[in-house]
Amino acid sequence: MALIVQKYGGTSMGSPERIKNVARRVAKFRAQGHQVVVAVSAMSGETNRLIALTKEVAANPDPRELDVVISTGEQVTIGLLCMALHDIGLKARSYTGGQVRILTDDAHTKARILNIDEAPIRRDLDDGKVVVVAGFQGVDEHGNITTLGRGGSDTTGVALAAALKADECQIYTDVDGVYTTDPRIVPEARKLDTITFEEMLEMASLGSKVLQIRAVEFAGKYKVKLRVLSSFQEEGEGTLITVEEDKNMEQPVISGIAFNRDEAKLTVLGVPDKPGIAYQILGPVADANIDVDMIIQNVSNDGTTDFSFTVGRGDLDKAVKVLEGVKAHIGARSVASDKTMCKVSIVGVGMRSHPGVASKMFRTLAEEGINIQMISTSEIKISVAIEEKYLELAVRVLHKAFGLEQGL
Amino acid sequence: MALIVQKYGGTSMGSPERIKNVARRVAKFRAQGHQVVVAVSAMSGETNRLIALTKEVAANPDPRELDVVISTGEQVTIGLLCMALHDIGLKARSYTGGQVRILTDDAHTKARILNIDEAPIRRDLDDGKVVVVAGFQGVDEHGNITTLGRGGSDTTGVALAAALKADECQIYTDVDGVYTTDPRIVPEARKLDTITFEEMLEMASLGSKVLQIRAVEFAGKYKVKLRVLSSFQEEGEGTLITVEEDKNMEQPVISGIAFNRDEAKLTVLGVPDKPGIAYQILGPVADANIDVDMIIQNVSNDGTTDFSFTVGRGDLDKAVKVLEGVKAHIGARSVASDKTMCKVSIVGVGMRSHPGVASKMFRTLAEEGINIQMISTSEIKISVAIEEKYLELAVRVLHKAFGLEQGL
Repeated sequence: MALIVQKYGGTSMGSPERIKNVARRVAKFRAQGHQVVVAVSAMSGETNRLIALTKEVAANPDPRELDVVISTGEQVTIGLLCMALHDIGLKARSYTGGQVRILTDDAHTKARILNIDEAPIRRDLDDGKVVVVAGFQGVDEHGNITTLGRGGSDTTGVALAAALKADECQIYTDVDGVYTTDPRIVPEARKLDTITFEEMLEMASLGSKVLQIRAVEFAGKYKVKLRVLSSFQEEGEGTLITVEEDKNMEQPVISGIAFNRDEAKLTVLGVPDKPGIAYQILGPVADANIDVDMIIQNVSNDGTTDFSFTVGRGDLDKAVKVLEGVKAHIGARSVASDKTMCKVSIVGVGMRSHPGVASKMFRTLAEEGINIQMISTSEIKISVAIEEKYLELAVRVLHKAFGLEQGL
Repeated sequence: MALIVQKYGGTSMGSPERIKNVARRVAKFRAQGHQVVVAVSAMSGETNRLIALTKEVAANPDPRELDVVISTGEQVTIGLLCMALHDIGLKARSYTGGQVRILTDDAHTKARILNIDEAPIRRDLDDGKVVVVAGFQGVDEHGNITTLGRGGSDTTGVALAAALKADECQIYTDVDGVYTTDPRIVPEARKLDTITFEEMLEMASLGSKVLQIRAVEFAGKYKVKLRVLSSFQEEGEGTLITVEEDKNMEQPVISGIAFNRDEAKLTVLGVPDKPGIAYQILGPVADANIDVDMIIQNVSNDGTTDFSFTVGRGDLDKAVKVLEGVKAHIGARSVASDKTMCKVSIVGVGMRSHPGVASKMFRTLAEEGINIQMISTSEIKISVAIEEKYLELAVRVLHKAFGLEQGL
């Protein structure tokens, strides 16, 4: 008998029929003798509907009141799921974030979980009940309703699993696991049986939106055994996200290929090549709350250099404005921008012990005539910025070069 | 400076634009220096939408979980109204039933308010805030969410006014007050400036659905000054519901005419005229949870009699079944039913001191050839059951006979 925390997302809870399906899945685990705690999202589309309503009432909705409104989506689904569980003969009890006392800080709309009172949950589990908890929400120390930000239900699931020392936290979603890359681009993409937290973090932050990145961090920190599964398939083990790489197995050199189309490049041309210039350029950008991703500085030529970096495409216009404002002050010649960029990354803990991964990546891209514009690396990841039109080609050839296809 | 509790119903909160209107009305009272506490209903249609959703998930939704789901409607509107208040520069704070701690018993879907914690409300009012409380909901002593039943938001408003000893409880609705009768039937119907609680109770229980009857009882018990107003009109004093009839004024003999189409008559024919027969007939009906309204027993003839009573039309088939089941046991000849009944009542505290009211009513109806089938009376009310086709005619002629028209 194990204690399992299951999290069902908005698509899994998207209709009365789907909610009944979730109830049947929970019943299957109960029939196997497991204790089950469920964290649920709002029905898909509901949170957006509520946000739209607030925008019609006030241009800038008060964050405290916004949380009061948008937390109702999950309050509806906990009630509905418990009814569905009762309807098929299971004992079940719902809890809002305030009722189970998921204590958070008071940062409305992006609160962080500080503590969960496990006592009432344990009592219900011992009593044979399925416990259903509203995802995405909590309360601050004064009892004000807070929400955890987009995808916060994943975090609720993981936090519950950590507080209860659950044997496993299962994240049910509309895909059946984590893939070596997006199967829409590489049909041969293979589902991974396991992936490490570090790899998952790199994959998630690079745009493989299977799991919310905060939930992965949380699970890694509290050593929660995390599994991603499909709520639309009866069978399948999904992908297990492990704390440590499996030392006993032959590790693949890389585990997956991530990519991100939402990139734009800015280049400050002809800046004096002197100490402090990077700060003079990036300081004002950071002050404008723009996240900078890859950064390169060209080799100096005649005492001046070109300085390039990437930002999210939505921030490009703002970043250009910031740079035009400081251009004269830093003595730059001009500012250029490019929206036709994308980023492709290979991720794998195996590359730590395998030299030559980077050169293999670069050679593979070179053989296809794909020009690399920028490079950034970490311990377990190599990213390159390339022209967006080459994205699919690059992902396909890298997927093949590193032997990630199914059946290999 | 007065402390005013305002309650806005579902129609008043029915759209973002209407919610903004409510905010502007609250602002007007704040600008006059009053402290304002607001109780709100869900947006019109929302509670029905949520109930429909639960029916799709489970045939018989668990009452505890049903309350979890349907209480979200008011949680949305408290947040929206506070945003709208902030948007026009007022300080405001929302409270769910659990947050302000509206303590109820644990009778889910029809809970009764036991206590309200006024301390946080007082603190906010002293801080210059408008306090916005979710109507229709509370929590039991274990923190389970409860709801008060249909129209429960009226009760929330009155209970808040009682707890805070408010100077006035204003119920905003889609009519501008209580009328002598339904203006759709009698265009000359006159809005009453005042009505006593007793009269209001009779009017409400007879189908003039302006106020929930429990709210009126509550207001009478705690001597809350209650006023019914339109949320769609800028001006107007509405109707004040007073504890005592105004001794200084010439009281009208009757205050209004109520009616109810939802009546059906059952007659048990040829029952032995002996003691206990009423109980033998009505006992099984009460056991089946059917409310009986008017009752008459005919004069005995040859040792047998006919026994008639009225029930709500929705209960008629069930009641017939019950009576058919006991018919043989009580020795009755047959059971007859009639769905073409209605009830018309004249209501007024003035009739206590004015004899001859009943005979005037009966004469007025007789002059129009309207046959009275049943009669029931109370201290301040006389009701007659008549054929439904005469309803409009009866209401019109009685309205005129008792001088209730506008301008009189």
